[in-house]
Amino acid sequence: MEKVQQSINIYPCPTAKPKPGQQSLGFGVHFTDRMFLMDYSAEQGWHDPRIVPYEPLQLDPASMVFHYGQSVFEGLKAYRTDDNKVFLFRPDKNAERMNRSCDRLNIPRIDESLFVEAVQTIVRLEANWIPVGNGASLYIRPFIIATEAALGVRASNRYLFAIILSPAGAYFGEGLKPVRIFVDDHYVRAVRGGTGHAKTPGNYAATLKAQTEAKERQHCSQVLWLDGIERTYIEEVGSMNVFFKINGEVLTPELNGSILEGITRNSVIRLLKQWGIPVTERKIAIDEIVRAAENGGLEESFGTGTAAVISPIGGLFWNGNDIPVNQGNVGSCSQKLYDTLTGIQYGRLQDEWGWTVEC
Amino acid sequence: MEKVQQSINIYPCPTAKPKPGQQSLGFGVHFTDRMFLMDYSAEQGWHDPRIVPYEPLQLDPASMVFHYGQSVFEGLKAYRTDDNKVFLFRPDKNAERMNRSCDRLNIPRIDESLFVEAVQTIVRLEANWIPVGNGASLYIRPFIIATEAALGVRASNRYLFAIILSPAGAYFGEGLKPVRIFVDDHYVRAVRGGTGHAKTPGNYAATLKAQTEAKERQHCSQVLWLDGIERTYIEEVGSMNVFFKINGEVLTPELNGSILEGITRNSVIRLLKQWGIPVTERKIAIDEIVRAAENGGLEESFGTGTAAVISPIGGLFWNGNDIPVNQGNVGSCSQKLYDTLTGIQYGRLQDEWGWTVEC
Repeated sequence: MEKVQQSINIYPCPTAKPKPGQQSLGFGVHFTDRMFLMDYSAEQGWHDPRIVPYEPLQLDPASMVFHYGQSVFEGLKAYRTDDNKVFLFRPDKNAERMNRSCDRLNIPRIDESLFVEAVQTIVRLEANWIPVGNGASLYIRPFIIATEAALGVRASNRYLFAIILSPAGAYFGEGLKPVRIFVDDHYVRAVRGGTGHAKTPGNYAATLKAQTEAKERQHCSQVLWLDGIERTYIEEVGSMNVFFKINGEVLTPELNGSILEGITRNSVIRLLKQWGIPVTERKIAIDEIVRAAENGGLEESFGTGTAAVISPIGGLFWNGNDIPVNQGNVGSCSQKLYDTLTGIQYGRLQDEWGWTVEC
Repeated sequence: MEKVQQSINIYPCPTAKPKPGQQSLGFGVHFTDRMFLMDYSAEQGWHDPRIVPYEPLQLDPASMVFHYGQSVFEGLKAYRTDDNKVFLFRPDKNAERMNRSCDRLNIPRIDESLFVEAVQTIVRLEANWIPVGNGASLYIRPFIIATEAALGVRASNRYLFAIILSPAGAYFGEGLKPVRIFVDDHYVRAVRGGTGHAKTPGNYAATLKAQTEAKERQHCSQVLWLDGIERTYIEEVGSMNVFFKINGEVLTPELNGSILEGITRNSVIRLLKQWGIPVTERKIAIDEIVRAAENGGLEESFGTGTAAVISPIGGLFWNGNDIPVNQGNVGSCSQKLYDTLTGIQYGRLQDEWGWTVEC
């Protein structure tokens, strides 16, 4: 890991954009006044960490990111508590995962403490952008792109690490709302030996077509991905990890190299264990879920991720058939997990885990 | 397909960069004075095709290409003939393939005749950048990137199509030189149902780590990829298609959805058939190649692609063992294919196929 000794330079930010109203926040469409940047060159390593006005990046058209996709990213949120503190949720885990993604994409590692410090510093500077209101937050998007201008297929010698911030409305406007999921056995998101466990743009690029088709053809809001080898075992749902509660036991696919190691996933598993609910990480065949739905054992199902926290699944569409889950209602386990995680994130519940970090 | 009625606007290009010397051309490191650009918006479709000075792209840091990798590209070359004409090689095939890549990546198709016209127009304008000399050429890189500034995971509503040009030296300076190949059964490039058949940056991002390790650990210049399902069947070599000649028959992996449909691959198959050499496209297990090498049936092997045209393989490193191919020499079939294809490309041989297009 590169050790950065320099402190973060904070440049003046002369203009302040008008802030969007609470009702028009949406997700990832408004951006704050500043961004964090840091450069890497083979000669200097990671250097010149700085916070500058948010403005277009000027990139040579031959920058490798446009051609060979060498790039990784992260996603986390800053939450404003009722007593006006600003919390991050497990940002050290994002830093660790970004470095694991860097390893797979052949990108030089960053200093993890600098990652957290950079997030804290820019969030403090942009604190007046953090929206107030239940479920609202400041979405934080760190990312690294290869910037060397060259067309040979090889790892770049230059990179840019950036952090941008976007005020985000509640993912679910009026309480949790179960979604309908298309089980896809045609398109594949990732396979063992590939990049599925890394947070890299190519994994997401591979899913867009399937997502569009699932929406247009079956009015499904997300795709449930099966493994690329046997097209049998459940991997992820949309860009979330997925859980099923069957006869009192919670199941989630094991980390097999093609699934993203979700931070919400990890937090959910730990909460469930604390509550005495058995959780098993293992291979789960889609047929097992279908059988459990048929015989009444499938109690609930949900996706987990930073954006939605918990996204209840109300039904699956698989092989031409609709498979309702919990009669399309929000399950009690989903609701309790959502309430607990957001309770900790917004400082309404005691954080006995040490998951929150103040900015 | 979007029909573009507008003609290409050609903007003044006041400055001319110094041109690199013949010996320092390299591949993809120098870029010419101009580039082609065209925009897409959901409202206007593809619009404003133009040729402008080569300069940095100004892109919002939230541009979707940086986050979800929605992007495709192509690669082709312009060749200067002995009598000073400029030839392209099957550019219509690049246009067709780019649209197939667009389909997979959920990017709106471009007008294929405009693609070819844009390539011809900018190459004509930059003709004094086409290097002279055996094997030298002007490398042409068309690419499309998603430019909408938004972080929701979905297809972009805005795109930029660009063409940049780079003078390239001969891939092999002093005649064909066989390369040593690392057969990889750990990393996977692509799998059926994924994006392997599309020319999209994420496929290349997935290969960089393996390529770096193959170089550092075994001094192999490329990786031979096995299928992602059984890790048994041969897919590609580096970013080229691969061929094996065994007991007089030429074998190449069939197009199975995870292999790129190479234009050089197609041309090689057609030439071999014309010459009466049997060619079979089918699944090829790595064990079959090892056995053929052991019993003396493996006559030669080579990769095919736009950059190298024909890249002879002198040996494989597999399972800890070195497997020599043709005693590390260039095979007669490889040499004849190279001489014929480059002969057509540089106008030294009659083009009975109609493969060359004058600029």
